[in-house]
Amino acid sequence: MLHDPNHLYIFDTTLRDGEQVPGCQLTTSEKIDIAKDLELLGVDIIEAGFPVSSPGDFQSVVELSKAVDNVIICALTRANKNDIDVAADALKYAKRPRIHTGIGSSDMHIQYKFNSTREEILERAVAAVKHAKSYVEDVEFYAEDAGRADLAYLAKMVEAVIAAGATVVNIPDTNGYCLPDQYGAKIKYLKENVKNIDEAIISAHCHNDLGLATANSIAAVQNGARQVECTINGIGERAGNTSLEEVAMIMQVHANQFPGLSSSINSKMFTHISRKVSSMMRMPVQPNKAIVGKNAFAHSSGIHQDGFLKHRENYEIIRPEDVGLAEADIILTARSGRHALKHHLERLGYQLDKDNLAVIYEKFLIMADAKKDINDEDLHTLLK
Amino acid sequence: MLHDPNHLYIFDTTLRDGEQVPGCQLTTSEKIDIAKDLELLGVDIIEAGFPVSSPGDFQSVVELSKAVDNVIICALTRANKNDIDVAADALKYAKRPRIHTGIGSSDMHIQYKFNSTREEILERAVAAVKHAKSYVEDVEFYAEDAGRADLAYLAKMVEAVIAAGATVVNIPDTNGYCLPDQYGAKIKYLKENVKNIDEAIISAHCHNDLGLATANSIAAVQNGARQVECTINGIGERAGNTSLEEVAMIMQVHANQFPGLSSSINSKMFTHISRKVSSMMRMPVQPNKAIVGKNAFAHSSGIHQDGFLKHRENYEIIRPEDVGLAEADIILTARSGRHALKHHLERLGYQLDKDNLAVIYEKFLIMADAKKDINDEDLHTLLK
Repeated sequence: MLHDPNHLYIFDTTLRDGEQVPGCQLTTSEKIDIAKDLELLGVDIIEAGFPVSSPGDFQSVVELSKAVDNVIICALTRANKNDIDVAADALKYAKRPRIHTGIGSSDMHIQYKFNSTREEILERAVAAVKHAKSYVEDVEFYAEDAGRADLAYLAKMVEAVIAAGATVVNIPDTNGYCLPDQYGAKIKYLKENVKNIDEAIISAHCHNDLGLATANSIAAVQNGARQVECTINGIGERAGNTSLEEVAMIMQVHANQFPGLSSSINSKMFTHISRKVSSMMRMPVQPNKAIVGKNAFAHSSGIHQDGFLKHRENYEIIRPEDVGLAEADIILTARSGRHALKHHLERLGYQLDKDNLAVIYEKFLIMADAKKDINDEDLHTLLK
Repeated sequence: MLHDPNHLYIFDTTLRDGEQVPGCQLTTSEKIDIAKDLELLGVDIIEAGFPVSSPGDFQSVVELSKAVDNVIICALTRANKNDIDVAADALKYAKRPRIHTGIGSSDMHIQYKFNSTREEILERAVAAVKHAKSYVEDVEFYAEDAGRADLAYLAKMVEAVIAAGATVVNIPDTNGYCLPDQYGAKIKYLKENVKNIDEAIISAHCHNDLGLATANSIAAVQNGARQVECTINGIGERAGNTSLEEVAMIMQVHANQFPGLSSSINSKMFTHISRKVSSMMRMPVQPNKAIVGKNAFAHSSGIHQDGFLKHRENYEIIRPEDVGLAEADIILTARSGRHALKHHLERLGYQLDKDNLAVIYEKFLIMADAKKDINDEDLHTLLK
């Protein structure tokens, strides 16, 4: 087998599934900039584009193949000869090329998108993998809309494409439809019912239409998937893809749930790379986004601030420095308590006894009810 | 039992856990505006504030109690007499008042936040519920940091507070720590091991620190929880709370997974209420947010646009009109295919045969590689 079954492969598709989003298009040099950061971050595979889709995208795959050394460069195709020929051409400079080909696997896609039959689609899938294999050793097959596919047919398709040479089989929940237990059960079924399954890596490719992309990806890993397809900040088609940073931090925080399984991600780069992708691709990250949102490590209620100041692990499961942030915030609002106020007053050099603190705290609350956020200047004013 | 075990109670805490976020503070009249919309949306409970925290928050609970008729109004307290006295006073005009009291349940909170013992904390929990019960019939108890609590101790605490009169027991994953299977197993354990558990409703209160709040809430419902605590747009402390709109749409899309269980939510209001909360609370919603993000129903890649135009269910599991959006978007970029281009040209009145379309499509790709988004004016230019 080409890949290591004890490694969790992180397949980044920021530059393909992310870049196809309205308003997110990048120039080739911007793509190279992000790709070099992704290489430093430790991703295993960069999906660089869909070469047949436009001359610009073709050229980007060529240039990314030249620019990146240690990461597999992957190009997307549909299951037809021309797409694969063009992708192979775009990948000619890649040190570690991968062709990612595939076709719809749900009856809905087979009937209403391809106007075809299960048998014909299976033949096209196998032919595409064999053709891609004539160019590169590493061929990933995607069974589009696998989230809604008939399980027995999906298993048959997976077995056939592995037999044809696929090294990775991607089981996409294209429409973000599955619940985590359903998606996990699908992966488990394939592990248990496809006889050559151990000759390939199973990949999870989830979409976030119901807010479940991360949970579905983790359920897949728990059931035997060894590659997760994801993007920085979870950008991507519609409600986006699985967030790379969420998957990586779950694997880190819950390492004991995944014995012997590691990824190569350096989480300390998350804050930097999240901000770069957000700014270059013009995709704002909401303040309450997990891991990389502006408020992800900000404590605001009095109960939380008090507990955090007593012992930070009371309200912190990830240290901000582990994702490249300087430190957690204690923000003063009308929901803050005495402990947080004292913390900030001491930071500014004011030492108050309990009675004086109580007096200032009452004044602080009136100011905070009126003014929302209280800054250092406001605190100096309060003390005057 | 006070509550219906076949109903899924939607407990909205936008105005409490959401409003405590830095920069999100609202005036009382803004809170009333949002509360009236939440009532129309069909939530069962509105958590209106934490009355002891500030005079402004006290007043908001008073005014919301007067303004809202058909929804339970809930006020938060810590497990002490004064907090509960103040909350009861703030709720005096509520037609259906609920006091939400509680205390830490994890050993970390017991030791490092309360400097106490399991036994003492259990006594304080029971005393708080009894005191709240002297004011109102409907008392919810929260076992803070239950996500990291010892399961046997948590079960003992839950049993004791139900015996003391709690009508709802909230099992918060305060720090957004649990994986869905872990959180689901916790709820299942309580259902199976707390002998008076059927005398109360179990509530899920999840945080999104690892991107799993929605999945954890759904896992809880699958295992017997009958109340979900959530906020519009998933706002809240740090990475936020469970998104109300995600939970409601999962219940709708996967109704067959939850036989006999319904909520009262009118999903057609989601777009409206999401935009109002975002604007009033100054909390942007990222374009790739599930259900309510600007791109949540926008199709951009050629493969998707083609499949969508052939049969929309190929790439759509929720109809945009079900969440109050006018229609799905087909956006033209360099990743679009001929089918999407033809769709827009026909919309503008241009009928092209296959050969002419092919010529225009090549020109379109060159323009789109250079210009990112292509608008109607660009299409007119192309055709000239």
